[in-house]
Amino acid sequence: MPVFSKNFKLGLLGGGQLGRMMLQAAIDLDIHVKALDPDPNAPCAKIAPEFVCGSFLDFDTVYAFGQDCEVITIEIENVNLDALKKLQSEGKKVFPQPEVLELIQDKRIQKQFYRDHQLPTADFVLTDNADAVAANVDFLPAFNKLGRGGYDGKGVQRISSAEDVHLAFTEPSLLEKAVDFAKEIAVIVARNEQGECKTFPTVECVFHPVHNLVEYLFAPADVSEEISEKAKAIAIETAEKLGIVGLLAVELFLTKDGEVLINEVAPRTHNSGHHTIRANHTSQFEQHLRAVLGLPLGDTTAHSTAAMVNLLGEDGYSGDAQYEGMSDVLSVAGVYPFLYGKTTTKPFRKMGHVTVVENDLAKLKEKVDFVKNTLKVIA
Amino acid sequence: MPVFSKNFKLGLLGGGQLGRMMLQAAIDLDIHVKALDPDPNAPCAKIAPEFVCGSFLDFDTVYAFGQDCEVITIEIENVNLDALKKLQSEGKKVFPQPEVLELIQDKRIQKQFYRDHQLPTADFVLTDNADAVAANVDFLPAFNKLGRGGYDGKGVQRISSAEDVHLAFTEPSLLEKAVDFAKEIAVIVARNEQGECKTFPTVECVFHPVHNLVEYLFAPADVSEEISEKAKAIAIETAEKLGIVGLLAVELFLTKDGEVLINEVAPRTHNSGHHTIRANHTSQFEQHLRAVLGLPLGDTTAHSTAAMVNLLGEDGYSGDAQYEGMSDVLSVAGVYPFLYGKTTTKPFRKMGHVTVVENDLAKLKEKVDFVKNTLKVIA
Repeated sequence: MPVFSKNFKLGLLGGGQLGRMMLQAAIDLDIHVKALDPDPNAPCAKIAPEFVCGSFLDFDTVYAFGQDCEVITIEIENVNLDALKKLQSEGKKVFPQPEVLELIQDKRIQKQFYRDHQLPTADFVLTDNADAVAANVDFLPAFNKLGRGGYDGKGVQRISSAEDVHLAFTEPSLLEKAVDFAKEIAVIVARNEQGECKTFPTVECVFHPVHNLVEYLFAPADVSEEISEKAKAIAIETAEKLGIVGLLAVELFLTKDGEVLINEVAPRTHNSGHHTIRANHTSQFEQHLRAVLGLPLGDTTAHSTAAMVNLLGEDGYSGDAQYEGMSDVLSVAGVYPFLYGKTTTKPFRKMGHVTVVENDLAKLKEKVDFVKNTLKVIA
Repeated sequence: MPVFSKNFKLGLLGGGQLGRMMLQAAIDLDIHVKALDPDPNAPCAKIAPEFVCGSFLDFDTVYAFGQDCEVITIEIENVNLDALKKLQSEGKKVFPQPEVLELIQDKRIQKQFYRDHQLPTADFVLTDNADAVAANVDFLPAFNKLGRGGYDGKGVQRISSAEDVHLAFTEPSLLEKAVDFAKEIAVIVARNEQGECKTFPTVECVFHPVHNLVEYLFAPADVSEEISEKAKAIAIETAEKLGIVGLLAVELFLTKDGEVLINEVAPRTHNSGHHTIRANHTSQFEQHLRAVLGLPLGDTTAHSTAAMVNLLGEDGYSGDAQYEGMSDVLSVAGVYPFLYGKTTTKPFRKMGHVTVVENDLAKLKEKVDFVKNTLKVIA
């Protein structure tokens, strides 16, 4: 069935903010999207052309959900892969493919894949249990990463020296040499079924000079053309070696020696691409749709320099979300808040993001600071 | 009730394509929009957070619809004004204001307003019936325009000479001197409750050199800085004299003598601003929301040169819409189709539009031609 026909349906596992922004892009092309999420108040619930409340981790739910869809995609990678495999075996298009999701879901397999395919990544050893970590003290300082189940910083433990070994995970994990990096950069690459591959410009995570936390994302990355091209080449090579159809967000370390190493990848739209909605000709969300629907990929050129600030629930507040300072930030040229439609806030919950579009770098930094100091999610 | 709170609701009269693009913009700011349209398959029906099927011309329907809304706005001006006035008198915010809609709905009152307020417009006489038209043959060539009920070219009749007088409308109308114009240009201006006023860059309707029909819209207009500024000043003056809150699309004639004259205005988002979604930092849809919600207006600067082509139902086809050539046009950099989600096509029905973003003018024209020759809505 052609994509642009009345009965075509795209199934989307997950109804969070990434799905929400994908739905906005789908409206332009009039793609009928049906979303699945266990939360009846998920960010997609009210605006999806069709919304099913149910678990994307449950075999029966996912299998039934996919029955009337021509193509099935995701906005979260932790989904029931057996159901997706069965749907795929029965002729449904599932993009990204379940085999790719499976490989990426387990950080041990993911890291081994890089090694087997000569993709640059920090040195590591697989550690089946805490004893195996203890046996590798010569490898420290390192990060101990759980093979499965880690998310948003969970499942990662720094082991600086032998004294920290008691912190090691008891489950199968890996020990990755700590990289003395100069910058963290990222590239989003799209690949469609026809094998067409396109990257977005390389972006950079800017760290707070004192607190050493990611402060905001900056696009394009402040790196040499050579480094930027190297990062994009690695992203394309990774997407091609995985054979992924869809979007792949590749997070990379730029070491102090000018080496570019893969940190980890996400097989979907990503926080590091949110600015593309306002700063690039094609957004990552439209690009994802084009990729999984077998359409030609869009022009990823940036028309503006941009920064992206995450909008997190303020510490100390839980309950009905209220946004303090919206009018103040909206009065600044080039400041665009994106609210995810989550009714309830809690400390550090991702409630939205703000894209700042400004070609003057000093002003951009000023505007980012203003947004960070002014806009608060309270209850 | 603050705009960015859980129970805030924006009522939208009309659920067509203009409403659809407004809904997309509303998602960014998480504005809960409730739309009203008589067509259960209207472009907004599936994606509005709340959709009410009913007539926006019916007093009771509109009055009941507005009860739980904090602000009520429109995407079509032909709505029940008595209901809006009653809602306004009971404390609801109705933007644009019903009095402004009333003035604009009647072309006779609209023209008289320009004259009374020294706003430049083509000379005219009010004609109560066909006899009055006949009595003004010295005014020809002219356009006879119906006071009320005209839409999309209907209700307008060219009266070139005395021989055409039998074509004159019998209802109250006006006779407007035909303007020997060099170009048709347009400016969209936004005004919020606080009186802040911002224009988008002046755009131009490009006519086909042979067929003398509007071929595409081009932004920015190919006119001098002086003319562009004059057009924007007229737009702002008109918005301020009307006291409108919301968007005002001002269509203007640029005469061969360099005069800029108001042709007509629309108190809402407009076809001449669709390209702003992809070519300007703030789109007309977001700007409309900011204006009617009392928020600071966004930066209207264009980051790219653009053209907009309407996508009309192909002559000779009626029924379930099919889109021929989508993959071909999507393969061209900078070509962005917007489909309005109308399931049924008929000859010349507005089914979508295509924005072409391209800073090289020769290439822009080439891409426009390619789109026009390639993309077809058939059944």
